[in-house]
Amino acid sequence: MSDLPETPLLDSVRLPSDLRELEPQQLRQLADELRAETISAVSVTGGHLGAGLGVVELTVALHYVFDTPDDRLIWDVGHQAYPHKILTGRRDRIRTLRQGGGLSGFTKRSESEYDPFGAAHSSTSISAALGFAIANKITGRPGKAIAVIGDGAMSAGMAYEAMNNARDAGNRLVVILNDNDMSIAPPVGGLSAYLARLISSHEYMGFRSLAKRVTRKLSRRMHDAAQRAEEYARGMATGGTLFEELGFYYVGPIDGHNLDHLIPVLENVRDAEDGPILVHVVTKKGKGYAPAEASADKYHGVQKFDVITGAQAKAPAGPPSYTNVFASALVTEGKRDPAVCAITAAMPSGTGLDKFATEFPERFFDVGIAEQHAVTFAAGLAAQGMRPFCAIYSTFLQRAYDQVVHDVALQNLPVRFAIDRAGLVGADGATHAGSFDVTYLATLPNMVVMAAADEAELVHMVHTCAVHDSGPIAVRYPRGNGTGVALPETPERLEIGKGRIVRHGKTVAILSLGTRLEEALKAADRLEAQGLSTTVADLRFAKPLDEELIRKLLTTHEVAVTIEEAAIGGLGAHVLTMASDAGLIDAGLKLRTMRLPDIYQDHDKPELQYKEAGLDADAIVDTVLKALRRNSVGVVEGARA
Amino acid sequence: MSDLPETPLLDSVRLPSDLRELEPQQLRQLADELRAETISAVSVTGGHLGAGLGVVELTVALHYVFDTPDDRLIWDVGHQAYPHKILTGRRDRIRTLRQGGGLSGFTKRSESEYDPFGAAHSSTSISAALGFAIANKITGRPGKAIAVIGDGAMSAGMAYEAMNNARDAGNRLVVILNDNDMSIAPPVGGLSAYLARLISSHEYMGFRSLAKRVTRKLSRRMHDAAQRAEEYARGMATGGTLFEELGFYYVGPIDGHNLDHLIPVLENVRDAEDGPILVHVVTKKGKGYAPAEASADKYHGVQKFDVITGAQAKAPAGPPSYTNVFASALVTEGKRDPAVCAITAAMPSGTGLDKFATEFPERFFDVGIAEQHAVTFAAGLAAQGMRPFCAIYSTFLQRAYDQVVHDVALQNLPVRFAIDRAGLVGADGATHAGSFDVTYLATLPNMVVMAAADEAELVHMVHTCAVHDSGPIAVRYPRGNGTGVALPETPERLEIGKGRIVRHGKTVAILSLGTRLEEALKAADRLEAQGLSTTVADLRFAKPLDEELIRKLLTTHEVAVTIEEAAIGGLGAHVLTMASDAGLIDAGLKLRTMRLPDIYQDHDKPELQYKEAGLDADAIVDTVLKALRRNSVGVVEGARA
Repeated sequence: MSDLPETPLLDSVRLPSDLRELEPQQLRQLADELRAETISAVSVTGGHLGAGLGVVELTVALHYVFDTPDDRLIWDVGHQAYPHKILTGRRDRIRTLRQGGGLSGFTKRSESEYDPFGAAHSSTSISAALGFAIANKITGRPGKAIAVIGDGAMSAGMAYEAMNNARDAGNRLVVILNDNDMSIAPPVGGLSAYLARLISSHEYMGFRSLAKRVTRKLSRRMHDAAQRAEEYARGMATGGTLFEELGFYYVGPIDGHNLDHLIPVLENVRDAEDGPILVHVVTKKGKGYAPAEASADKYHGVQKFDVITGAQAKAPAGPPSYTNVFASALVTEGKRDPAVCAITAAMPSGTGLDKFATEFPERFFDVGIAEQHAVTFAAGLAAQGMRPFCAIYSTFLQRAYDQVVHDVALQNLPVRFAIDRAGLVGADGATHAGSFDVTYLATLPNMVVMAAADEAELVHMVHTCAVHDSGPIAVRYPRGNGTGVALPETPERLEIGKGRIVRHGKTVAILSLGTRLEEALKAADRLEAQGLSTTVADLRFAKPLDEELIRKLLTTHEVAVTIEEAAIGGLGAHVLTMASDAGLIDAGLKLRTMRLPDIYQDHDKPELQYKEAGLDADAIVDTVLKALRRNSVGVVEGARA
Repeated sequence: MSDLPETPLLDSVRLPSDLRELEPQQLRQLADELRAETISAVSVTGGHLGAGLGVVELTVALHYVFDTPDDRLIWDVGHQAYPHKILTGRRDRIRTLRQGGGLSGFTKRSESEYDPFGAAHSSTSISAALGFAIANKITGRPGKAIAVIGDGAMSAGMAYEAMNNARDAGNRLVVILNDNDMSIAPPVGGLSAYLARLISSHEYMGFRSLAKRVTRKLSRRMHDAAQRAEEYARGMATGGTLFEELGFYYVGPIDGHNLDHLIPVLENVRDAEDGPILVHVVTKKGKGYAPAEASADKYHGVQKFDVITGAQAKAPAGPPSYTNVFASALVTEGKRDPAVCAITAAMPSGTGLDKFATEFPERFFDVGIAEQHAVTFAAGLAAQGMRPFCAIYSTFLQRAYDQVVHDVALQNLPVRFAIDRAGLVGADGATHAGSFDVTYLATLPNMVVMAAADEAELVHMVHTCAVHDSGPIAVRYPRGNGTGVALPETPERLEIGKGRIVRHGKTVAILSLGTRLEEALKAADRLEAQGLSTTVADLRFAKPLDEELIRKLLTTHEVAVTIEEAAIGGLGAHVLTMASDAGLIDAGLKLRTMRLPDIYQDHDKPELQYKEAGLDADAIVDTVLKALRRNSVGVVEGARA
């Protein structure tokens, strides 16, 4: 850990109201101190760094010009909001970022009135800001809504839907397009090329000319319809921008690190009578911290690091991550089969598909933050004979649910879903937890839903996906590292809907789906030590269920427990439904289902999250003993009564 | 029913290959006959009419110019594809449209090789077409992919995501923008205004000038990078259109009813070396049928009708539809509370919100086909103190699932979801069935999920939504008419998570959610006639469950059955999970869950769909008797053994 930076001016600013007491010429120093404090804090917590460094000046300028929190400032995604948190009364806790009980790594309504709308998934900010703006319009309440959205987030359809609806907000809505030409990976697609052309075709304007232009353009009402029509006509003739064609006034591009430009332009925008206005601000991710500026991903997400050298703490050596195992397995499939292709929605390195991209660039597709398109594009590929893998985190696949239902499952097209970050996700917290995929996928006819119990299983399941041509299939696996098992030389094709018995016993049956298997085995040891002979099965499939195996386990053991890292409605519900359909519960069945609790769990260390969730070996033992009505030292509770 | 039209030329065309044998000057007659046949067919089946009539010439032209089915023609939404079906070997079944066992009202892969990608939800076609195009690119297979998409469908973010990714397809992709300035309702937003400006700023070009322009623009490769750069620069200087800024070549606008223009332009587009190309075609919904052209919604969806007069068959008088009851109830809430507002995604009349719009135009929002934006916009409104109702059909809410999870439920914002068309939907078929909402919503922490058992219940539930400020809440109700019960003078606020007993009995308990209650009561009568005293409960809430009531029913009756019009993972799964958690199944519990089957049910008459689903009174009686191990005449099966 490094010494704390000297921050005399920042020390005087607890809230934006303090900031607004400063003279404009003091803001440069404040921004420098804010940047130093941000670097210092993230060096001890880890987290998102590059994005926050890119918006230090913008953060200062927005709070200086706008009347937060009454003006509603909404940071898209929210992972760039650490400087914002420092300026809005949370500096005293900034070194608790992403730690259990500490500040969230994203904006969060429950944390501060300066976070009017929580975020973490991208591209929601304009829709939310429109909600605030229109509410003010209806109620006659004063106040603006300001959405700050990156160019990468603009590739999502949702942002476009919102822009297409923005006109009614008038001057109550301001959209700041924070264009750093990079969200997590470099952005893709036509919009990105368009923004590049916009920037290259204009010089940055000096603040005088830009401010004048803004004033001229916005600060008078055009009462005359003819005048307005002329304005429109001129806009068309001179090549109104894409944003103007959607109904915005476009201002920019502006150097987002130059406070002498930002402040007067934002003041003009604030005071404009017309709107909505889109301000195109150009920033540099990682700005002002040399190691970040020099790194390929601009320190998007970092471990703890040394402020002087930029060296990040290395993760302890250990088994490979599930992501890496998936990545290698898919490359193997790609070598074997030229029809295998891979799709990511702006997460080539997060999903591990960058490896596939290197080997097979012509079969790799990064569609940008566009999960809906990703899935239906994959459906089209599958319908034309390809074998597409859609690699999307569990929580982000929610954004393509209708496409999974309507374009893939209903048509029974063999799209393969590689669902990373399934289950709890540690420091990323509730917004990124992959809690619901088993439920929302297993309810769909035609769908096959697998979960890998360890990294060797994942290899088999990737292969099984690749060769499964009769319909859609999904494999889920968690964030983090594997268990250290040996990886198979040759992947096997698993039989669809068949589980496996990992440990044979007689009294207790644990039916596990996914990586809770390790805890199930630990629990089995402890139960065995109490004289309870325990079977552990890895069901592998949440759908279709291995009905034969499940029936056998339920009918030959005294108590059975299902366990999965998923919310209600998943494996446990399907097993219970099957047991009920078959009449197995009629005569009495000690069956319990262990699952994620019915809450959104806050960020914390994974092991503490599992403890809170009641999904560790202790909890399994407890559940079994309670079902048997024994306490943990083996005394039958009935006997005590 | 009217006489069949005279169609001598159409009679000679069974497949597009026959069509392509015709001389260009014969196509006008063919189109006229095709229009007459379409009108005649829909007059006996009912269905979508206006959209099909608008694309008669386009359908003829596309099949004439392109090499279907090897060139992949993808109709967005698919409800305009009746003329396409007539030309692609399905004319002999065209009068079975939307009837049980007959043709689907949408495109469907299993129906024809000329339907390479099924549709019914809007805005998927460009993504799918890109999949086909890119698969051809990878494999070196020849062939184009042509997406035909309406201007209304262009308001969905998914279409934008696809356009943003289209460049790599090159000339393999053609997008036909079918601009009739009306999807179901008039379209909204900036894009619509933009298209209107495009049309008003250009004369339709004659085919010579337009064809020449297309030829000049597209039919030479620009090998020289400098030349290409110049082209780009010129595009910017002269105001490249929104579509060109996203990477398309824009061609249009073209009169979509003039075959002399359509054919040569499409031939040029087909032969172009550059791409992708967007062809802007202007059509008139309902074209060529006076009653359709004259009607406000252009005969979007019609009952059977008289071809001469256009008079539609009236639905038999009966109870009001759930949609109408919802619409009136929401107006009542709007009068009571100025914070109540309403949002639709392009379905003002389908959802009944047109009534609310008339009363409270300033609190009504039609956001276009933009469900994602609709939900997060509602979340923003709620966060600023409004009481928004998002009225979205069950199947379309799937498109906003992530927004429901991440923006609404996780933040516990009080957005009200009015979920029409929940359950089976008759003639609209599998793509429109609202099968999954109970499952995908009830798995979410914070969410309240209600289902109305009849129209009076719906009134109470709309009120309960309006006054429920502590978090998100949803009410689902089916397509079709209510049961005829009296509507309440004053709506009641229901207690959250409390059901009601509708009929008291002793032996059998039927736990119903939603409108299957009527069948449950019928079943109870029949069971009673067999000496089985039957309780019927209307649980009202799938989440939170009325645990007290359920526990009481399960423990005091010999057999219990849950019934819901929803897929696995919903009410039944939650009741079973609760019973398992509480240990109620340990000692034996005859509990069965009745739900939608694990298939996508084809379109049919509703009563036949319910029979197929096993969700009618007969099925309930059977389920109960089987659970009791009696056959339907009351003999205990065990006694026979």
